[in-house]
Amino acid sequence: MEKVRIGLIGFGCRAYGMNDILLGFDDVEIVAVCDKYEDRVENAKKRVIEKRGNTPFGTTNYKELLALDYVDAVYIATDWNMHFPIAIDALYAGKATALEVGGAYSVEDCWALVDAQEKTGTPFMFMENCCYNREELLATAIVRTGKFGKIVHLSGAYSHDLRGEVTGGKENRHYRLNEYLTRNCENYPTHELGPMAKVLNINRGNRMTSLVSVATGSFGMEDYVESRKDTIVNKDLIGVDFAQGDVVNTIITCENGETMLLRLDTSLPRSYNREFTIRGTKGMYEQNTNSVYFDGQPEYWSSIDYINKYVNSAEQFKELLPHEWKIITKEALEAGHGGMDYVELREFVDRVKDGGEMLCDVYDAAAWMVVTCLSEQSIKQNGAPQLVPDFTRGAYKTRAPKDVLEFGKME
Amino acid sequence: MEKVRIGLIGFGCRAYGMNDILLGFDDVEIVAVCDKYEDRVENAKKRVIEKRGNTPFGTTNYKELLALDYVDAVYIATDWNMHFPIAIDALYAGKATALEVGGAYSVEDCWALVDAQEKTGTPFMFMENCCYNREELLATAIVRTGKFGKIVHLSGAYSHDLRGEVTGGKENRHYRLNEYLTRNCENYPTHELGPMAKVLNINRGNRMTSLVSVATGSFGMEDYVESRKDTIVNKDLIGVDFAQGDVVNTIITCENGETMLLRLDTSLPRSYNREFTIRGTKGMYEQNTNSVYFDGQPEYWSSIDYINKYVNSAEQFKELLPHEWKIITKEALEAGHGGMDYVELREFVDRVKDGGEMLCDVYDAAAWMVVTCLSEQSIKQNGAPQLVPDFTRGAYKTRAPKDVLEFGKME
Repeated sequence: MEKVRIGLIGFGCRAYGMNDILLGFDDVEIVAVCDKYEDRVENAKKRVIEKRGNTPFGTTNYKELLALDYVDAVYIATDWNMHFPIAIDALYAGKATALEVGGAYSVEDCWALVDAQEKTGTPFMFMENCCYNREELLATAIVRTGKFGKIVHLSGAYSHDLRGEVTGGKENRHYRLNEYLTRNCENYPTHELGPMAKVLNINRGNRMTSLVSVATGSFGMEDYVESRKDTIVNKDLIGVDFAQGDVVNTIITCENGETMLLRLDTSLPRSYNREFTIRGTKGMYEQNTNSVYFDGQPEYWSSIDYINKYVNSAEQFKELLPHEWKIITKEALEAGHGGMDYVELREFVDRVKDGGEMLCDVYDAAAWMVVTCLSEQSIKQNGAPQLVPDFTRGAYKTRAPKDVLEFGKME
Repeated sequence: MEKVRIGLIGFGCRAYGMNDILLGFDDVEIVAVCDKYEDRVENAKKRVIEKRGNTPFGTTNYKELLALDYVDAVYIATDWNMHFPIAIDALYAGKATALEVGGAYSVEDCWALVDAQEKTGTPFMFMENCCYNREELLATAIVRTGKFGKIVHLSGAYSHDLRGEVTGGKENRHYRLNEYLTRNCENYPTHELGPMAKVLNINRGNRMTSLVSVATGSFGMEDYVESRKDTIVNKDLIGVDFAQGDVVNTIITCENGETMLLRLDTSLPRSYNREFTIRGTKGMYEQNTNSVYFDGQPEYWSSIDYINKYVNSAEQFKELLPHEWKIITKEALEAGHGGMDYVELREFVDRVKDGGEMLCDVYDAAAWMVVTCLSEQSIKQNGAPQLVPDFTRGAYKTRAPKDVLEFGKME
């Protein structure tokens, strides 16, 4: 395959940015676009014409896009609740599938996705961009040297004040709004869980066995709307009850004795943070300070003054970074989320071309997304533990580790 | 009461430091000392003679100390497993009781402590020094202004690498060693829980209703001993299994919709940290950076570079600090843990003298320490939720808030 002909399904802000990166790849053509809103289809077509000259097929019905024989691959970035049906249809249609992140609504959906991929053998990549971010990769690289010893605990967060974004606009078109109005769960687990699961070789020698999840009440969104009721554009939201707890903590237990702590934190005022943290018997990594601490180093008090004086930058290990991050261009760094989107899309296109194994595969997608519906159950049951299914059907015991650091060389 | 005559029970490192502070108070006499080890009793006596000239009564049997009519008050800093029996005996003996922190072994012990205080009316103070620390008090003061809005979530940790301390020495005399060998629980919850509970007015209008607790496997202590087996003094520990998980996360749910997250983190290499964090609908506080963030401020990425540039120091609110922290002396700051031990002991002595209400009372002690045995149960049950008893027997609904910021004025 010389060129990969891609169809985009779901053309909100996310797809707009990813489309722009894809349009910069010589070996990609955007041949079709789809969104449930007509105006977005037109925007998408316009953007492709503007940047590359060709006019892609446009539709509001994704099934029409999947029926096109000249589409090799699809990138899906719709509302979360359409991720599973569209991805499953795409796999059965034989289109190499890149599925954006989100959470699952049921365990059965996750199994159906795994079944579809296994039955068809269609290439599938779960688009967890944080697995491709420089800091997470650097930390993972240090893990692989053994310098942190046995990894015991990881933690991370999706800390992102989304109050303005979710409640913004006039027409309730934001894909998260209905989620926040009607559900209460760890609705966006994968930005932190993906990189953690890679560190622990989940689905490749290890697996998640159970989780507990506890949510605060829902105060942030309502307070945000109430305190801006004179200026908010969407007056329908005034006085409305939101279902989503402001902070959801989820603790996942793994078979080899490790735990992972996730925090969803999107409806209270704060700064953006993922807080990726790795703890081992010989050392630790902290993303906020991009620092490492090893057994035997003098202990210090983690206040800002001491951190500024004493922390050891993880940058001393930058030679361990994968090739892609060593040759990263200024253009790629500026393309989206500091370079990770570029690296991730390059990986997808390269694997579609060479038929290689995807790093974040269908088992990862199922295992990571199922956290959402399990957390929903746990929260309803006052934090009661939920068993996590093994979507590899036992194969994780013998599946060879495939390191996120080994991904495609882009010489 | 002009002078408070104090008996010390349990004379390890902690009591040594606290004794030194008390010996600096003109209105205190150390009249009796007790420890189960004879050499420590002698050390204690020697120290008192050295600093103040008087020879205190010494014993290895705490009941002998409690029988002395010239003891007004006791300070208890024994092994954790003796905290409850000694404190209960002290209350029945009518000695004003200052009980050091630790965790409970059973719900029944907590009830027995509450019963003893209620039946006798003996003054009781739970010695949670972090409730008196400057940073926690400053953050709480900002909460009271309403600037953080409704408080929704708090988190904190006891992150303290204790591997060397617990496994050190020849004779297994460290009070935590047996705990780490035999139990698996949130064994030291109160340093972070105390200040959080004060913020949320627990036992005074609010209460903890349930918790879940999940532990990692136990890897850190064993790895520490194994990797130092040639040099470790206590050879008995080589090859021994520890029971305590390295990291224990506990999520507590409160009646008014708030959650509190605690992390015990004492057997992996790391820097010291309590990570006291307050999240509200209008803003947040973070102890690591001693910073505040308010709704409407420009959002930033929580990396060290941005933090250094953009965070707003909580120091802008220092006028809100209680009087004691405004007049703090250099000597007090150097006396122990940056001043909080001095302020705390001053509070105990002043309340014994004036008969005033203790800030951290028996209901606080019971509610905070019970977390340990409940977490032990939860961990055994794979994280199953445990109900937290209401030790106020319903009185929390009408008990007036008593703010930690109002403690005794030391003009």
